[in-house]
Amino acid sequence: MANPTAAMLVIGDEILSGRTQDTNTHFLAGKLTAIGIDLKEVRVVADDADTIVSAVKTLAHSYDHVFTSGGIGPTHDDITADCIATAFDDHIDIRQDAYDLLAAYYAQDGKDFNTARQRMARIPDRALLIDNPVSVAPGFTLENVHVLAGVPSVFKAMVASVLATLTGGAPLLSQTRRINRGEGDLAGPLAELAQQFPDLSIGSYPFLHEGVYGANIVVRGTDVARLSDAIAKLNQLFPEDT
Amino acid sequence: MANPTAAMLVIGDEILSGRTQDTNTHFLAGKLTAIGIDLKEVRVVADDADTIVSAVKTLAHSYDHVFTSGGIGPTHDDITADCIATAFDDHIDIRQDAYDLLAAYYAQDGKDFNTARQRMARIPDRALLIDNPVSVAPGFTLENVHVLAGVPSVFKAMVASVLATLTGGAPLLSQTRRINRGEGDLAGPLAELAQQFPDLSIGSYPFLHEGVYGANIVVRGTDVARLSDAIAKLNQLFPEDT
Repeated sequence: MANPTAAMLVIGDEILSGRTQDTNTHFLAGKLTAIGIDLKEVRVVADDADTIVSAVKTLAHSYDHVFTSGGIGPTHDDITADCIATAFDDHIDIRQDAYDLLAAYYAQDGKDFNTARQRMARIPDRALLIDNPVSVAPGFTLENVHVLAGVPSVFKAMVASVLATLTGGAPLLSQTRRINRGEGDLAGPLAELAQQFPDLSIGSYPFLHEGVYGANIVVRGTDVARLSDAIAKLNQLFPEDT
Repeated sequence: MANPTAAMLVIGDEILSGRTQDTNTHFLAGKLTAIGIDLKEVRVVADDADTIVSAVKTLAHSYDHVFTSGGIGPTHDDITADCIATAFDDHIDIRQDAYDLLAAYYAQDGKDFNTARQRMARIPDRALLIDNPVSVAPGFTLENVHVLAGVPSVFKAMVASVLATLTGGAPLLSQTRRINRGEGDLAGPLAELAQQFPDLSIGSYPFLHEGVYGANIVVRGTDVARLSDAIAKLNQLFPEDT
C-alpha cells in the first residue's frame, strides 16, 4: 500500500522578503520521512487571506495531510485560523476550551489576558485542539489540515503532538555513499544502477568542497536488504573513490 | 507602479525527504527584495516530470518571473531542462553554444566530455544561456522562467548573472525594532499603528529567547521618511521595552 501523502504550507511575509530563513519545513520533512508519510509539496505564501484560503483548499484536496506554519499569534497580521475556517466553510469565534487554557496560563503568569491574547482562542467549531506545551496557545486540526505555530520551538512541540496521533506507512530508509568524483563520471553507471533497482530511488547530490567536485549518492527505499544490495553494487562500481 | 512579481520553484526530492535544508530560496528572497522585485510564492516539488511541468506552467502564468533551482546536472534524475521545454512547447536537444562551452572546459581540465556531461548542453531552442562562472554548465532563461542550478555556490553565481539583466521596482526598505514584551501586549497598539500607516507593512515576529518572550517589529515600505515616522511612533508607544 502506498504511504500517506502530505504537503506543507508556510505562511509569512518574513520568509518571502528574505528576512527569515524557514527551518520548519526541513524539521517536518525529516519527521514525516521517519514515520512513513511522504512529503510531496511545500508552498510558501504571503499573509494574504485570499492566497492562504486558495492554497489550503488546493493542498487539502490533493494530499492526505496538510501542515501549516505561522500566523496564529495575537497580532493583526495573524489571520491563519480565520482563513482555515473560511476554506472549510466552518464558523469561527473565541472557543471556550481554548479560552480556558489561555486564561489559566495568563492568570498564573500575572499577565493581562487582553483582547489581543484572546484572539489566540479563535478556533473553528469543528477543529480539534493541538497541544502546545511551550506557550499554551493551541494549534488545531480541521479535517486534514494541521495548523501549527511559526516560532520554531513551538512548531516542533506541536509537530510532536500531532504526529503521535497519525498513522504512517513504511518508513523511507536511506543509505548514502560519498564519492569524490564529478557527477559527469558517475551519471552513466548510476543510470544503469537505477534501472537494476526500479524499486529504489537513487539520487545524486553534487557538491563542490574546497575546489573538489564530488557527489553524495543517496539510495532510498523501504527494504533494507535491497538498499544494501544497491550500495554493494555501487561500491563495486566505484571501489576507490571514497 | 507596482513592483514586478516573482515565484521560486525548488526542484528536488532531497528537500522533501528532509535530507537537505534549502537555502537558495532565502538567498534569492533577499536579493529580489533589494532590487524591488516582490517574491510572492515559493513551491518545492519532487523530481517528477508531470509535477514540474504543471508547476512551471502555473507559476509562469501568475508571476512576472519564475526562478527554478535544481535538476540541471548530468545524472538520470536531472530532468528540469526537458520539463521546461515541455512546459513552453519548445524543442530541446544538445545545443552547440552550450556544447562548445563545456567541451572547452573539460578539455582544459583533462576530463572526459562523456555522454552524461553532454546532457548538460541540453538547452531549449529559444532559451538564452545564463552564465555559470563557477562550473561552466550554463543555466538558461526561457520566456519568463530562469533555470538555475541547485548547488548553492552555483545558484548564487547564476542569480548574480540573471539579476544584472532584470529591471526591478522600488526596493522594499525595512526597519526593525526589538521589543522585549509578549506579542499579546503589543498587538493592540500595533493594529492601531498599522491603521495610521496604511502605506506600510507592519509585521510582528515573536521569539522566545532564554525564557523571555519578545517580538521583532518590522516596518516595511518604499518611503524612508514614512518608515522613520512609524518607528518614532513605535518608540513613543514602547519607550522602555528595548
